Amino acid sequence: MALKEIVVMLGPAGSGKTTLAASLGKWIERKQMIRVGYVNLDPGVRKLPYKPHVDVRKYVTVDEVMDRYGLGPNGALIMSVDMAAQHKDEVAEAVKRLPYPYIIVDTPGQMELFLFREAGPAFIEALRGAGFPVAALIYDPSSLVKPEDIVGLKLLAMTTQFRLGVDAVPVLNKADLLGEDGRIPVLLEDSEQLRRELLRSEGVYAEVAEKILAVLDEYKLATRIPRISALNGSGLEELYDMLHEIYCSCGDLT
Amino acid sequence: MALKEIVVMLGPAGSGKTTLAASLGKWIERKQMIRVGYVNLDPGVRKLPYKPHVDVRKYVTVDEVMDRYGLGPNGALIMSVDMAAQHKDEVAEAVKRLPYPYIIVDTPGQMELFLFREAGPAFIEALRGAGFPVAALIYDPSSLVKPEDIVGLKLLAMTTQFRLGVDAVPVLNKADLLGEDGRIPVLLEDSEQLRRELLRSEGVYAEVAEKILAVLDEYKLATRIPRISALNGSGLEELYDMLHEIYCSCGDLT
Repeated sequence: MALKEIVVMLGPAGSGKTTLAASLGKWIERKQMIRVGYVNLDPGVRKLPYKPHVDVRKYVTVDEVMDRYGLGPNGALIMSVDMAAQHKDEVAEAVKRLPYPYIIVDTPGQMELFLFREAGPAFIEALRGAGFPVAALIYDPSSLVKPEDIVGLKLLAMTTQFRLGVDAVPVLNKADLLGEDGRIPVLLEDSEQLRRELLRSEGVYAEVAEKILAVLDEYKLATRIPRISALNGSGLEELYDMLHEIYCSCGDLT
Repeated sequence: MALKEIVVMLGPAGSGKTTLAASLGKWIERKQMIRVGYVNLDPGVRKLPYKPHVDVRKYVTVDEVMDRYGLGPNGALIMSVDMAAQHKDEVAEAVKRLPYPYIIVDTPGQMELFLFREAGPAFIEALRGAGFPVAALIYDPSSLVKPEDIVGLKLLAMTTQFRLGVDAVPVLNKADLLGEDGRIPVLLEDSEQLRRELLRSEGVYAEVAEKILAVLDEYKLATRIPRISALNGSGLEELYDMLHEIYCSCGDLT
């Protein structure tokens, strides 16, 4: 069997990782006729809209940790994600054994527990033994109001790539929230326009904004940003294609 | 009274924001003879090592939200931080009325709820009506292993500055964990050495690393990075001085 295509769902809390994991998986099964394996790495989730084939809650859950150690939700989330990471090799081995060519990996609700602690780098490294991981970096458009916010999103994508060593495709989830406002999508994809608006703004950081943008351009973040609508499923094909492109251009070589 | 000096404690979950809020505050009261007001913006914290003068738990707590809405810890954390932000003006007003010149603001355990959603920008904006906010970006050195991790930290500092519009001083907490390993502190402060190690590493991103570093240099992130030891309180003076320097160079002008 060819190297498994592993898509890791990342994004700040509340961006809709888990919902998109389910809808992307369903779409791939139905439209691409490819069987999808689901992996849940979030020990804090209670209900999932998909049936995970590999589930880190087999080893640890936030609720158990809260009860056993008398911790509040903050502390218990940190501890349970750290504890989950200790089972990275069993998780990766189970993923490897799944008879599915396409794997969708759902990650902890609070991204920073994954990204800025040990768990993310550890899980990704282990998963490389089971296939080729690529990340979808999911973003909620309600956090994108000013031009500076878009620089923040791009910096997060870059940080993700740096910390985890995987390519990340930024995704705008809940695109229905964008409504008629076409400004944000334009700024996301048109770095010239973004540059103009940043320089026009009165922000303290306008002067360095241009240099940062130059690096972001250089860094070749995805220039297209799929917009997902849960209402009609639009954007899923574009997301699938972009992830698949990365897999094809790099995955076969490793 | 002069413009209040407001220090906002930021950092990924588990980096030690709350503990450092308490120890920095105590140090300032004892060594600088300045009275400190404490503000807690974390609706999820159960016990605090300081007595908050303004506390967002007056309006909302994670435990209440879990009970009332039947949410798990993840969902309840997101919702409660969003709900807390609706009280930003009352919080800022209460801070303004505090008879203390120095204010330490503790933020939600999960930084992304503050940084990547509405709460952070909203609270910071409101607090500008009460004083001059500067951020301490607290980092746990156990997340710093590879040269790429340090770029991740610097990108996070830049992202923080962009999202919140405040200057951020990176702080290495739990410096005792560094032990005898002098490599990480050197790489943090010596961008030439960091550049050399990045280029030597086999990572996919070595080629763009240099350009990113050039921007980070340009961006004039703090070149000194205070290292805090909880054991003997070292680093607190350096941190205080650096925050105060920013306040003095910008605070008086606004």
